[in-house]
Amino acid sequence: MNYQGKRWRTIWLNDDDTTVGVIDQRLLPHKFKTLNLRTMEDCAEAIRNMTVRGAPLIGATAAYGICFAIRDNPGDESIQAAYKTLLATRPTAVNLLWALNQMLAAVTPLPPEKRLERAWQKAAELCDEDVEVCEAIGRNGLAIFRKILKNKKAAHVDETRLNVLTHCNAGWLACVDWGTALAPIFMAHDAGLPVHVWVDETRPRNQGASLTAWELNQHGVPHTVIVDNAGGHLMQHGMVDLVIVGTDRTTAHGDVANKIGTYLKALAAHDNNVPFYVALPSSTIDWTLGNGLAEIPIEERSAAEVTHLSGKTATGTLAEIQVTPDGSPAANYGFDVTPARLVTALITEKGVCAASEAGLKKLFGR
Amino acid sequence: MNYQGKRWRTIWLNDDDTTVGVIDQRLLPHKFKTLNLRTMEDCAEAIRNMTVRGAPLIGATAAYGICFAIRDNPGDESIQAAYKTLLATRPTAVNLLWALNQMLAAVTPLPPEKRLERAWQKAAELCDEDVEVCEAIGRNGLAIFRKILKNKKAAHVDETRLNVLTHCNAGWLACVDWGTALAPIFMAHDAGLPVHVWVDETRPRNQGASLTAWELNQHGVPHTVIVDNAGGHLMQHGMVDLVIVGTDRTTAHGDVANKIGTYLKALAAHDNNVPFYVALPSSTIDWTLGNGLAEIPIEERSAAEVTHLSGKTATGTLAEIQVTPDGSPAANYGFDVTPARLVTALITEKGVCAASEAGLKKLFGR
Repeated sequence: MNYQGKRWRTIWLNDDDTTVGVIDQRLLPHKFKTLNLRTMEDCAEAIRNMTVRGAPLIGATAAYGICFAIRDNPGDESIQAAYKTLLATRPTAVNLLWALNQMLAAVTPLPPEKRLERAWQKAAELCDEDVEVCEAIGRNGLAIFRKILKNKKAAHVDETRLNVLTHCNAGWLACVDWGTALAPIFMAHDAGLPVHVWVDETRPRNQGASLTAWELNQHGVPHTVIVDNAGGHLMQHGMVDLVIVGTDRTTAHGDVANKIGTYLKALAAHDNNVPFYVALPSSTIDWTLGNGLAEIPIEERSAAEVTHLSGKTATGTLAEIQVTPDGSPAANYGFDVTPARLVTALITEKGVCAASEAGLKKLFGR
Repeated sequence: MNYQGKRWRTIWLNDDDTTVGVIDQRLLPHKFKTLNLRTMEDCAEAIRNMTVRGAPLIGATAAYGICFAIRDNPGDESIQAAYKTLLATRPTAVNLLWALNQMLAAVTPLPPEKRLERAWQKAAELCDEDVEVCEAIGRNGLAIFRKILKNKKAAHVDETRLNVLTHCNAGWLACVDWGTALAPIFMAHDAGLPVHVWVDETRPRNQGASLTAWELNQHGVPHTVIVDNAGGHLMQHGMVDLVIVGTDRTTAHGDVANKIGTYLKALAAHDNNVPFYVALPSSTIDWTLGNGLAEIPIEERSAAEVTHLSGKTATGTLAEIQVTPDGSPAANYGFDVTPARLVTALITEKGVCAASEAGLKKLFGR
């Protein structure tokens, strides 16, 4: 995607061929700064501290982590140790496991001295594939957007905008490029559709207010930031034509784990007959799980993410403030599970399907 | 209620008998500071800028506004002008209208020279009545809490706490004393029930994180602050035994307007068979309205409440930060309407009733 006239991805191999560049997403939207990752532990820490986030980008960063581990020591034990460390960084997103398995399958059959070259190559391939996959998700989503807009026009609704609500950030910053849920939004805007996005702030880390709003702003897509509490009211009043979100893990039955609060929006969409779409690369599907509510591990993060917020002061510096009283504890669950019954359809790189075992089997032939 | 060992109400006539004291709620939970209101316009501005908030306290503050107007000029025109100004301060809470009408009914039959004394007396009566009403709501709610805890124990659930989720602040800070939704919580705690409160942060103004958490902290009630996105997840996992909230306006059919986001929690409670209670003084009932979704006016407030937050820095000073990118617009709807079908029961000073025309008629004989 474009940032200030230059074409960017969220992760890249630097010209030195030995370090990997990423955007420090903790500073957005107020500062755009890149960082270089130089070791496996740099990659693990970047995932842990959310310098990089978003299920596909976590996978890509972990892939480069394997490269660094092999550079230091191409033996099986070294690779296994790196696999274990990287897998433990975040528990909910399954792309991480998928990307690590892809890397190991590529390198472990080779003799140690050939592993490094193949690892760099495979990590780059995974990144390129992610871009293609997201582009395909965008095209498949765009067809749905066109249809909903056509139906709206046919119903002679006064409001001519196509109002899309999204939660968290499933944009290009969450992937290598394009994004998942935001890919059809960028494409719709580029194709001249009058798309307008309601951006859920997405507490506690505000990925909507900070990252999604920033991406839409950079691309010139009309949007309005709202608090997470507002979406139900908007849907009750016909101000949302569709909801589209990403997912960190999708079960074989079509249940989806996504950023905490997604389930509440799915309930509101269902209660108001607003279609609720989930956009995902198939690497996000965990074919080993059925019931998402019982089986998907939900990350618990630091209470400080709830009690403290950071942002820009009037003088332009970054500052952190405490919003709760001293002595009040906080809890911080990172994700929730939206049951398949609340999902209108899954939008994947292979096409669109029902959020069900049958729907997924039909599309993926498993 | 007690604050640092002293008994407080949220509004009081000072010993000078001519100024009215209030707590500046904009500074909580970080600073406890009182302010004196000296004119009708002071009262109107305190309501507008949310120095005072909460439907019952807005009504009490408006009542004192009428006193000040009469002090300056006891004629009919002066009173009517004050009535109009005060009524226009906030559009959603109906107690404001109720309190103003109570004041006018008390003073306008009297000759101008007798109006001021009666006005001070009536405003004090309204405050005392609010305290009694909230106490009665607390007792009626406590009976429900006891029953739910008994059923939980009978079901041999491992977790022995009574987990209550609340949204926004319907505590003593929202009223003159006790609160509405929080009254049964304080009473349950005082009676030795193992009550624990999940406190919704309540963006954008964070009345949960700042006011409810502060009240519970002061009273020693175990509680945990969560982001507004988290409640659905907690309910899916059996971690909430009941939800209780206040309301700014309740229709004759039992629909309730309350702080934005309440509707999302009601949907989650319904989806997970968690009882959802609304606690209210009967002055919050608007008998003229049926369908809340179509008929209750919803306040739109400044976008700056979404884009900027204030809190305490590491050095203890108060600071404001911007969380959105420059150039991203925001929208700020203050309330939403929860349809009666999602409300388990209404808890009033007269007793508990179904959220329906029949339930309300039976209890209030109208």
